[in-house]
Amino acid sequence: ADEDAMRAARARQGQLTKPPGALGALEDLSVRLAGAFGTPTPHPQGVTVIVAAGDHGVVSEGVSAFPPEVTPAMVANFLADTPAGPGGAAVNALARTLGAQVLVADVGVNADLPAHPRLHALKIRRGTRNLRAEAAMTREETEAAILAGARLAAQAMEGGADVLIPGEMGIGNTTPAAALTARLLNVPARAVTGRGTGVTDDTLERKVRVIEAALARGGSDPADPLGVLADLGGLEIAFMLGVMLQAAGARCVIILDGFVEGSAALVGVALQPHLRAYLFPAGECAEVGHAAQLAHLGLTPMFHLGLRLGEGTGGVLAAPLLLGAAATLREMQTFAEAGVPGAP
Amino acid sequence: ADEDAMRAARARQGQLTKPPGALGALEDLSVRLAGAFGTPTPHPQGVTVIVAAGDHGVVSEGVSAFPPEVTPAMVANFLADTPAGPGGAAVNALARTLGAQVLVADVGVNADLPAHPRLHALKIRRGTRNLRAEAAMTREETEAAILAGARLAAQAMEGGADVLIPGEMGIGNTTPAAALTARLLNVPARAVTGRGTGVTDDTLERKVRVIEAALARGGSDPADPLGVLADLGGLEIAFMLGVMLQAAGARCVIILDGFVEGSAALVGVALQPHLRAYLFPAGECAEVGHAAQLAHLGLTPMFHLGLRLGEGTGGVLAAPLLLGAAATLREMQTFAEAGVPGAP
Repeated sequence: ADEDAMRAARARQGQLTKPPGALGALEDLSVRLAGAFGTPTPHPQGVTVIVAAGDHGVVSEGVSAFPPEVTPAMVANFLADTPAGPGGAAVNALARTLGAQVLVADVGVNADLPAHPRLHALKIRRGTRNLRAEAAMTREETEAAILAGARLAAQAMEGGADVLIPGEMGIGNTTPAAALTARLLNVPARAVTGRGTGVTDDTLERKVRVIEAALARGGSDPADPLGVLADLGGLEIAFMLGVMLQAAGARCVIILDGFVEGSAALVGVALQPHLRAYLFPAGECAEVGHAAQLAHLGLTPMFHLGLRLGEGTGGVLAAPLLLGAAATLREMQTFAEAGVPGAP
Repeated sequence: ADEDAMRAARARQGQLTKPPGALGALEDLSVRLAGAFGTPTPHPQGVTVIVAAGDHGVVSEGVSAFPPEVTPAMVANFLADTPAGPGGAAVNALARTLGAQVLVADVGVNADLPAHPRLHALKIRRGTRNLRAEAAMTREETEAAILAGARLAAQAMEGGADVLIPGEMGIGNTTPAAALTARLLNVPARAVTGRGTGVTDDTLERKVRVIEAALARGGSDPADPLGVLADLGGLEIAFMLGVMLQAAGARCVIILDGFVEGSAALVGVALQPHLRAYLFPAGECAEVGHAAQLAHLGLTPMFHLGLRLGEGTGGVLAAPLLLGAAATLREMQTFAEAGVPGAP
C-alpha cells in the first residue's frame, strides 16, 4: 500500500467539513482505499463479481445439506434469461440493482455444462478428489486454476473493473475452506467448521471428522501455502486466489465476501503478505470460522447481516459502502474550501 | 403494514434459490419492505434525502463543540457548486455516488440565508428558544414545522421518491434530541446524552445538567407527544417528523439515520404507532442513546460503522442494502423456476 497516499488521505479526512472522526469506520476504509489505489482521492467505479464454480470429491462423505447436482444447476441459474434480466440467483439480483457486473466461470464443475455466451468455460477438471483420502488437487491443477482466475481478473480489469469481488458456488466447499483454515491458522477443525448451507448436528459432526481425517493425513505443511491449497482446497478456491493476486498486483481492490473466499485469502496472504492491503471484508458471515479468518488477517468487516450464501453476495452489498467512503475523500469540501468555521 | 404481503414475501424467501435463511437479516428487511409497500415484490427506486436545518437557543448554554455559525455555513456547503457537482458536504458526496437525490430545507436557521434555486426556504423562526429556560417552540410553530416537512415529502414523492431519508443539520441539536429521548423513554438525561460532534468531558457534564434542568421545568408530559416536541425539540426535528408521517401515510419507507432522527421517530411512533412499520434504521450511530431509541422502537440497525455525522449520511449508505433486499424478492428465481434441486 502507498503509505504517502494513506497519510495524505488521513490528513484530508481531518480537514473535511465534518467533526473529526464523525464518519467512523468509513474514514478508515477511505484511508485504506487511498493506500490501495495509491492516491488520496481514489475513484473506484468498476465493481465486478467473478463467480467461480467447482465441485468437491469430499461430498461423497455426506458433508453437505444439498446434492452436488445443485452446482451445475446454480451455474445455469447464474446464466438464465429471466424477466428481470440475465441471471436468477441472489448475486444477479443484487448486482443488477446495485450496478455491479457479474462474470461466471466454470473452473471445476462435475458436469459437462452447455456452452453459453456468458459462461467462461475454464474447467481444470470435473471436481476435486476426496480430500479425506488424498490430496484434493495436484500442484499443477492448483496452479492452472490460479492462473485461470488471474487471467479472467486481468480481462475484467482491462474492461474497467477496479473493485473485484471473487465469489463462489460449489456444493461442499465449506469443507475444504474449513480444512484450509484449520491448517493455516493451526487450530482444531472443530473450531472453524460450521453448518455451511445448513447441515444438521449429525452431518456437522461427520464434517468435522472428515476434516480431522484430512488434516491427519499430513499431506501438507503451512510453510508451503500452495501445497496446503492443493492438498485441502478446491478449484474455485484456487481460482479466487488467482483473482485476488492479479487484482492486488494491478492495485485494484478486492472485496472479501465470506468464509470460502476467506480461505483463499489466507493462502494468498501466506504467499504474499502485501495482498492484505488490498482486501476489504464485506460482512462477517454466519459461518463459524469466518471471524477467526478475519482476526488472523487483522481486518474488520463492514457489517454483520448474518449472510451465509456465498456467490459474492455480501461483496456486492458492501461495494456501495466502499464507493461512498472513497467519495468522501474525493468530493467533500474542506472547512477552508467551504468557508465553514471549525471547532474553536 | 400489509400482513398478507409480508406472509407472501416470507414464503417466497423460502422458495428462492438459496439455502433457507442464507441471506440473513436481508430476508427480514425484504419482508418488512413487502409489508410497507404492500406487495411481496417491492420495487423501491427513488432514494431521496431531505436535509432540514435549524438552530437551537440552547447553544447559548455552551452545549456544542462548534459555534452556531456552522449551521448556515453548512447549508451553504450543501448547496455549493463544486467540481464534483452540487454540494460539498458528506451527504452530497455519498448521495451523488450512490444515486440518491438531496433536498435542502431551511426550517429554522438563525440567519437570513440568501435565496438559492436548490434551497427550500421554509423557515418557521430563527432558531428555537432556549429549552433550558422555556419551551423551545410554541405548539403552533411545532405544527407549522411538521406541516412543512410533510409538504416537502409529498412533493418529493410526487417526483418519484419512495425511500425517504430525513436528515438534519443544526449545531446543538443532540441536546434537544437527548431531552426528547429522556422524556419519552422516561430515563435519566445522563443515560441518553452523548458527545454530539465531540464535546469534552466538561461540556458533556454541562450538557447533561442543561437537559436535566429542561426536564425539571416539567413543561410537558409523555402522554402528549406533540407537547413534548414543542417543549424540548427543535424545528428540524419537527420537520423530520412531518417527513416521516407523510411518507408512511403514502406507504413509502423511511430510512432512520441517527440519534436526532431517532428522536423525531420516538415522537412519531408515540403519535401514530403504525409509523414503526415504515421505519428502517441505517446504522447504530456512535451517539450514546441511539441504542436505547432503537430498542424502544424494536428495530435492528443494518450496520455498525460508528457514524455520528447526521445529514442523512447513514441513511444514504444504508439505501443500497434496502434496494438489494427488495431485489432478492423481486428478481431471484425460485427453485422450481430455475430447476435447481432442493435439499433432500
